[in-house]
Amino acid sequence: MSDIKNNADLQEFDISPVTDGTITSVPGVLTSSCHCGIRKFKDDFSIIFIPGETACSAVFTKNKFAAAPVIITKEQLSRCRKINAVLINSGIANACTGVQGIDNARKTIKVAAEYLNLHEENIIISSTGRIGRQLPLDKIEKGIAYCSKNLSLVHGHRTAKAILTIDKHPKEVAFRFNLNGKEAVIGGIAKGSVMVEPDMATTLSFIATDARIDSRVMDAVLKECVEETFNCISTDGCQSTNDMIVAIAGNSSEVYISEKDFHSYNCFRAVLMKCLDELSRKVVEDAEGATKFVELMITGSENKNQARQIGKRIANSILFKTAMYGEDINWGRIAAAIGSHEGDLDPFLVDISIDGIFLMKNGMAVDFDIEKTNDLLKNKYISFNINLNSGNTSARILTSDISYEYIKINALYKKQQ
Amino acid sequence: MSDIKNNADLQEFDISPVTDGTITSVPGVLTSSCHCGIRKFKDDFSIIFIPGETACSAVFTKNKFAAAPVIITKEQLSRCRKINAVLINSGIANACTGVQGIDNARKTIKVAAEYLNLHEENIIISSTGRIGRQLPLDKIEKGIAYCSKNLSLVHGHRTAKAILTIDKHPKEVAFRFNLNGKEAVIGGIAKGSVMVEPDMATTLSFIATDARIDSRVMDAVLKECVEETFNCISTDGCQSTNDMIVAIAGNSSEVYISEKDFHSYNCFRAVLMKCLDELSRKVVEDAEGATKFVELMITGSENKNQARQIGKRIANSILFKTAMYGEDINWGRIAAAIGSHEGDLDPFLVDISIDGIFLMKNGMAVDFDIEKTNDLLKNKYISFNINLNSGNTSARILTSDISYEYIKINALYKKQQ
Repeated sequence: MSDIKNNADLQEFDISPVTDGTITSVPGVLTSSCHCGIRKFKDDFSIIFIPGETACSAVFTKNKFAAAPVIITKEQLSRCRKINAVLINSGIANACTGVQGIDNARKTIKVAAEYLNLHEENIIISSTGRIGRQLPLDKIEKGIAYCSKNLSLVHGHRTAKAILTIDKHPKEVAFRFNLNGKEAVIGGIAKGSVMVEPDMATTLSFIATDARIDSRVMDAVLKECVEETFNCISTDGCQSTNDMIVAIAGNSSEVYISEKDFHSYNCFRAVLMKCLDELSRKVVEDAEGATKFVELMITGSENKNQARQIGKRIANSILFKTAMYGEDINWGRIAAAIGSHEGDLDPFLVDISIDGIFLMKNGMAVDFDIEKTNDLLKNKYISFNINLNSGNTSARILTSDISYEYIKINALYKKQQ
Repeated sequence: MSDIKNNADLQEFDISPVTDGTITSVPGVLTSSCHCGIRKFKDDFSIIFIPGETACSAVFTKNKFAAAPVIITKEQLSRCRKINAVLINSGIANACTGVQGIDNARKTIKVAAEYLNLHEENIIISSTGRIGRQLPLDKIEKGIAYCSKNLSLVHGHRTAKAILTIDKHPKEVAFRFNLNGKEAVIGGIAKGSVMVEPDMATTLSFIATDARIDSRVMDAVLKECVEETFNCISTDGCQSTNDMIVAIAGNSSEVYISEKDFHSYNCFRAVLMKCLDELSRKVVEDAEGATKFVELMITGSENKNQARQIGKRIANSILFKTAMYGEDINWGRIAAAIGSHEGDLDPFLVDISIDGIFLMKNGMAVDFDIEKTNDLLKNKYISFNINLNSGNTSARILTSDISYEYIKINALYKKQQ
């Protein structure tokens, strides 16, 4: 349970949240955002700029229709991990756009390299929005021209807003930590309120730090932290073509992270975990049309994978989601979702409880105080425990309910564009 | 494509629909239904009675929390395939009810054996309704007492209604066929409007025939037909604990079906396929709150399994379903759902079209007449073709949209009980 671990970590290490923290809370990180004209009114183009000898790690969607920016950013990172600029547009996903889409992503990087006076190999690109449309390069160039001249150390909040699509709230966070008397920060932003499903790098998220860490070590830490955070959330079970989580270390502080120095490694992991945990929670809390925030603790599993898969079965059950919306303690839908797990599972060992009140024990209905459970379901935050009683690993899956509002937003998506 | 095959079959064999066909259209099949008091007003208990030297085949849910009636009916059929009575209650699923649930299912069979003057081994049981409640044996006995005295050759329609839960319409069908100048009938009923997902024996369905066929041969035909029909529908991706499809041959006609006589075997398969196809279509058409009936033809696949899995990915995408409800040709959601397929797939070969109008070709957006596609989406019946262009097998998945009504019905389920 990352929560419990994180709290222990917060005490073990000297970690504290930055007030109003965002990506530009990290020393040496500049951003700029503007309205270049892809969307009607909102900001739709941003640059995150981190000068110097950086190290970059990233995880990507597993979708076979990976968008052009995903393909190109993967290609860029396979050549060079020193990344100084991330270009981000919202409004158009540049997915299912064929060779021209790939070409447009490359051209965008080329143009940005000129304006920013960087080598092309030091730039990556990310997009979010509607699938199947080509990037308007003239508008994008205007965005690059503006943003490259207006990079700022204090515009993190504006950039956190500019990368959103139909999210209601920006998602930003930063934590300060101390190692051997030296201070560093990890901060980041994220977007995502639809097509959010675990088991992949979900949504867009950009993380920066001024700590000194090489990309090989950061790869391992990022992967581990994403597994426990962004890969444990699901709002609608739909996988996006454009997801990426990028972490860039500016290497500008005096805080050195090394896998040989366990204390520094564990501390960095704890802070990154805390950042990604908060950002991923914010994604679920901002899920389209959601009225409930549901935590599914799967305990007593044979292994992590079993726990995560079973948690996902429940999180992605439309019937479970509608029961949560209707504040109906219909635990039979939880049992049916658990039972649809394709791997090993002994149903006669499974317990389901909410706030310590057992609804099912050993695979069998038990009497419970329906008034008490009805009261619990009226809360915005709901937490179920599913104990498989067949091992000692666990996973926590975060999800939301599904409401009239979700249907409305997604049925009428075209009219809002 | 079962449709095309079936039509060819209908011509090849001498098959015709029975007007107002139902399970009692099959000679020698009796049913009775009544209100025994499990539910408030509706009929909730039924017996299907087929005397003589019958042969029974069945397929069941793969859910690990299989209900007591599923466990007991499997056990019964493992001992004896001569089944003369099927007991069906609606209102209570008898799932997650532990040893007592198993015991209650056994007792129900024991009581029915006395009233019907049958051996226990010749009776099976099926339940549908809310999970986690025990069967009220006193009420069930009243139902058995009434139904055993009121078996009728003409009550098929009433029984088709009695097995429903929150379905709006009964689902019934019968086909007559001729073999070597002799006539036989296959007829059946089904229920299901929620927790309907392919890749398992879905919903409840009871099929009868007066043809002469042994259970070993019928096992093979039933499995093949269910694979192509009930296992190719999905309304909400949720798997039930109680699903079963039962086929009973009364062996009372002069029509002999044998695997050695290819013509008889193929004819029987064609008729059973047609019955299950119509019943499964009716289940999708009656899907809770559905306003659209969507056919997904997956063609050019490497194998059937790939086609079916990709079709399911689309059918179960909430975003695709809401787009259909909103009459929005958001084919990017189809592409994203296809791309989430975990097996092999070359995205650069994939075409998506609707009524011959290409929306995506070779994995890339193409221009199309948006007014024409908008018009097509206004229809109740919508058909997409997804050509993977990497093989010569295909599958057809039937699904529905998801509407405000679905959310309402399932969020407020407890208040309707």
